[in-house]
Amino acid sequence: MKLATLKQGGRDGTLVVVSRDLARCRAVPAIARTLQAALDDWENCEPQLRQVYEALNSGAVDAQPFDEAACHSPLPRAYQWADGSAYINHVELVRRARNSEVPESFYSDPLMYQGGSDSFIGPRDRVVADEAWGIDFEAEVTVVTGDVPLGATPAEAAKGIRLVMLVNDVSLRNLIPNELAKGFGFFQSKPASAFSPVAVTPDELGDAWHDAKVHLPLVVHLNERLFGRPNAGVDMTFDFGQLIAHIAKTRELEAGSIIGSGTVSNKQGGLWGSSIEHGGVGYCCLAEVRTYETIEQGKPETPFLRDGDTVRIEMLDADGRSVFGTIQNTVEALRR
Amino acid sequence: MKLATLKQGGRDGTLVVVSRDLARCRAVPAIARTLQAALDDWENCEPQLRQVYEALNSGAVDAQPFDEAACHSPLPRAYQWADGSAYINHVELVRRARNSEVPESFYSDPLMYQGGSDSFIGPRDRVVADEAWGIDFEAEVTVVTGDVPLGATPAEAAKGIRLVMLVNDVSLRNLIPNELAKGFGFFQSKPASAFSPVAVTPDELGDAWHDAKVHLPLVVHLNERLFGRPNAGVDMTFDFGQLIAHIAKTRELEAGSIIGSGTVSNKQGGLWGSSIEHGGVGYCCLAEVRTYETIEQGKPETPFLRDGDTVRIEMLDADGRSVFGTIQNTVEALRR
Repeated sequence: MKLATLKQGGRDGTLVVVSRDLARCRAVPAIARTLQAALDDWENCEPQLRQVYEALNSGAVDAQPFDEAACHSPLPRAYQWADGSAYINHVELVRRARNSEVPESFYSDPLMYQGGSDSFIGPRDRVVADEAWGIDFEAEVTVVTGDVPLGATPAEAAKGIRLVMLVNDVSLRNLIPNELAKGFGFFQSKPASAFSPVAVTPDELGDAWHDAKVHLPLVVHLNERLFGRPNAGVDMTFDFGQLIAHIAKTRELEAGSIIGSGTVSNKQGGLWGSSIEHGGVGYCCLAEVRTYETIEQGKPETPFLRDGDTVRIEMLDADGRSVFGTIQNTVEALRR
Repeated sequence: MKLATLKQGGRDGTLVVVSRDLARCRAVPAIARTLQAALDDWENCEPQLRQVYEALNSGAVDAQPFDEAACHSPLPRAYQWADGSAYINHVELVRRARNSEVPESFYSDPLMYQGGSDSFIGPRDRVVADEAWGIDFEAEVTVVTGDVPLGATPAEAAKGIRLVMLVNDVSLRNLIPNELAKGFGFFQSKPASAFSPVAVTPDELGDAWHDAKVHLPLVVHLNERLFGRPNAGVDMTFDFGQLIAHIAKTRELEAGSIIGSGTVSNKQGGLWGSSIEHGGVGYCCLAEVRTYETIEQGKPETPFLRDGDTVRIEMLDADGRSVFGTIQNTVEALRR
């Protein structure tokens, strides 16, 4: 089943069920006005939403054209956005660039930070930020949970996964060193994120969903140039069940919590061979190619995003069809 | 005006207007069913809620008895809970205990972390945690904002303050060193917080609210023994306008965001003289007295909370009347 939120009807938008081919949609006010309302009462709403989804796919029900550009993030605001760093390759690279070891514990104890969730931007909205902050994108996979009890095991936690989405976890790289030095983690360096137009139930991914991971390439374009297509199912050290269980160690999760994978990153050789141009799978953020450049050439060469730069993030199924619709964010530099 | 949320009517509870003396309350479904709904449309709702408040205080309207024990946190879940560390004395003490300097930047650049906000506990709920985690309380003042634009100055940000509450920011001290060493800040070490039964508009504080600070003692009892009563208006290095502006530097805040002061802490001499028994104003968390003990005696002596321990947090006005009602959390140790 595919769900989206149109930018109309209030702060939380209007929930629509979307046809599998992303061509048509239908609002469902009699079932749930918003995605959060559906998640709050999922056991009751989910079978009704599925009926609409099947009718949409078979053409048996009235529908309106689905316009990704009219969408907000599926949850325009959420009660939780917790982002992991499950692709340890990303961490290994960053550490190698500054000649520090990855602690052994990082392979058994996930890195995770609490993100701001009160005000996401939409999948086609602009990223408004100061170029001096070092604007970067991070293409990731995320899940949305139902209620998960305190102390849930990874297997129990995985059963709490309701939906899958993509995210552009916008990051302000030049603000990170100072924030991490302060010891309290990311804060100003993580402005509002943008999620894919469409959220899908895990069954919608078919064989590509197993072991609580999405086994498909995550495709990133920068200014129309293919920049990355690493497989989200490869080199993911912690699956979503493990990430959710990490949170649930000391507190319960309430329905509508969004959990991120961290920047998708596949282990490759060095810089030469890792980029798309040299036959690699490329990258899901600028920081990673800058790290390769630092390791091999002594300093980064690829600049961060500038005014007018556009990043596009999507995931295609085995037949080349877009699963989640497309995140497409253009940078609008803050003038001061 | 005083507002509270009863534990009935769904995940977000039922909004009630509470009389100034906390004796009576009245649900206002025709105005707003939940506090978040009122905050989402504050300009429209606030004057209507004030009419009910005035009628309640004058006895001109039907009301039910107000029972603090029937309350959830005013926002049972929120879209944002960002906690500062505005009382630098607390940071200075912790640093002195480990012989490290407080960086100069800490006096101009607030420390702040993003807390989990999907599932708060109620003001009289139990804190369920493992004693081995080092269970501590942190008594703080918090504000709830309306919408605050990107780039708001401290003065603009202060105008966005809608409500004031107290919080018990439960902290798991023994999990903190490992989490901070990982570099991503607090996560598992900050389980669900409990807020005061009642949220009040700043005007309700009268002369005690100025310069975006609350100038009243925050009273903490541990197992019925007075443990602290530092004045929340003293030694607060960053006011709430500055804390909110810190967030707004790189993103807008949406209505219903909760911003915390960090543990209230007044500068005092050494351990002898700082405790209530020795004529001081005492402490708002166990970590602080343990830090004093470490500085003066080489090691901490006061234990963290154990099964059955109860912390009580409240604030009294100049006439000794409770402003926010009482947070009273008892520890229930996790058995495994």
